[in-house]
Amino acid sequence: MNLLVTLDENYLGPLFTMLYSLHINDPQAKVHLWLIHSAMPPEALEKTQHYCRSFGWQFTPLEAEDSLFEGAPVLRYYTKAMYYRLLAFCILPEQVDRVLYLDPDTLILNPLSPLYHLPLEGMLYAACCHTGLSQITGPVNRARLHSSEDTGYFNSGVLLMDLNTQRQNIQPNEIFDYARAHASELILPDQDILNALFAERILPVDDTLYNYDVRQYDAYRLLSSGEKTMDWVMENTAILHFCGRFKPWTPSARGRFVALYKHYAHLCRQYMRQLPNS
Amino acid sequence: MNLLVTLDENYLGPLFTMLYSLHINDPQAKVHLWLIHSAMPPEALEKTQHYCRSFGWQFTPLEAEDSLFEGAPVLRYYTKAMYYRLLAFCILPEQVDRVLYLDPDTLILNPLSPLYHLPLEGMLYAACCHTGLSQITGPVNRARLHSSEDTGYFNSGVLLMDLNTQRQNIQPNEIFDYARAHASELILPDQDILNALFAERILPVDDTLYNYDVRQYDAYRLLSSGEKTMDWVMENTAILHFCGRFKPWTPSARGRFVALYKHYAHLCRQYMRQLPNS
Repeated sequence: MNLLVTLDENYLGPLFTMLYSLHINDPQAKVHLWLIHSAMPPEALEKTQHYCRSFGWQFTPLEAEDSLFEGAPVLRYYTKAMYYRLLAFCILPEQVDRVLYLDPDTLILNPLSPLYHLPLEGMLYAACCHTGLSQITGPVNRARLHSSEDTGYFNSGVLLMDLNTQRQNIQPNEIFDYARAHASELILPDQDILNALFAERILPVDDTLYNYDVRQYDAYRLLSSGEKTMDWVMENTAILHFCGRFKPWTPSARGRFVALYKHYAHLCRQYMRQLPNS
Repeated sequence: MNLLVTLDENYLGPLFTMLYSLHINDPQAKVHLWLIHSAMPPEALEKTQHYCRSFGWQFTPLEAEDSLFEGAPVLRYYTKAMYYRLLAFCILPEQVDRVLYLDPDTLILNPLSPLYHLPLEGMLYAACCHTGLSQITGPVNRARLHSSEDTGYFNSGVLLMDLNTQRQNIQPNEIFDYARAHASELILPDQDILNALFAERILPVDDTLYNYDVRQYDAYRLLSSGEKTMDWVMENTAILHFCGRFKPWTPSARGRFVALYKHYAHLCRQYMRQLPNS
């Protein structure tokens, strides 16, 4: 299973916690972790290598070449790193034909293989709309991005990618041109670009299974007529996503899922302390 | 490590969840589980035996003999089973000199050995007062039970027992006599009797480490001047106790620690499904 993350050194702690939860809750997964980065210190890369190897996984870091971004506008506070997930099809080697991108503010509670092996049937991506909020934000975002009424607003935190289909159908300049033309309207640039350019070529996937927004527990439960209780989540949800500003690794984090997150963060630190030095 | 539980068939699910959390978070523990019961069905005992053996643990069920309870009054809605933990010193074999009693509505997050190996120095028990609430309920309970001002009101959900000292110092009739004389005043009979008769011979232990009342997160944090955050709990607390009426295994359970509990309940069920039949 090819997994992709694109992050800098500040997110290594959350990445290790997420990977630990994957190791515990999807023990059968044979993972090849790909990291697209710029200027990650060699010690951090070695540490990640060592950690992945301890699970029997492969790890390949890829430094994004500047030449790829020659046509790219840099938007507001965002660096070119925000393009990495959208340009993964140019950066990952040709033999990688499918990859699951995961934000590091996620926790894996059940196996990923049903998502990973989903038939994409010619679509570029599979992704989730956050259904709990979509009745409010969906129409606003669709209007803002001049997109069709028929699709929701996809969250870019969990993205299954058919890289071959992308290689055949997407030009990097298409992305840069859109970013340049709409610079002032973009709020979350990578996610907005994904939705504006590709929404109709994204296979929608159930967010309560694969991109569960932890802030929306009450909405999910209500919208499912009470079916999606906490027991249901624990039995069924594969990916919890700690969306929003208040991250579960901060000391003041609050909410229903914070204890669970922090327990995994603790198990991960404990595991890493016991690892022999490479 | 000798662990004691006293429960009926209805609590097997919570017991298995608690034991699973112990197996994961105290992997070094070599457990001998003792169960004092009356009329637990043989299939339930076999299932528990099989489960314990899968962890490499020992399991011994002991049926409490009726003769032991000849002098015992039965209080209100409580059966004689409420005496089991207080009379464990009569029921467990002589060679067992120390045992840790655990309520089944607990979750083990860190190793139990520091508690288990605590020097008891002539005391009968080690136990915790719930400090978060003790400023309110402590004085009330002390007055109600006519007990000294110097001790708090101990929770009987986690009890480390020096069985030899108990065998030398406690007569079962002492317990039955107190129960008979004070029947109308007792609210939680076993816990009230423990406090009324033995409070001064109980070694107080930090509840935030070994009997963390999940309802009291805010109080614990406040009383520790902010030190006891959720991160602190995950790093330090060994025993979470889901006190009170609303149990974490019910579908409608709410609260900060419910997701963590239900995740372990799920892992436990998953583990049991994969166990080969004995």
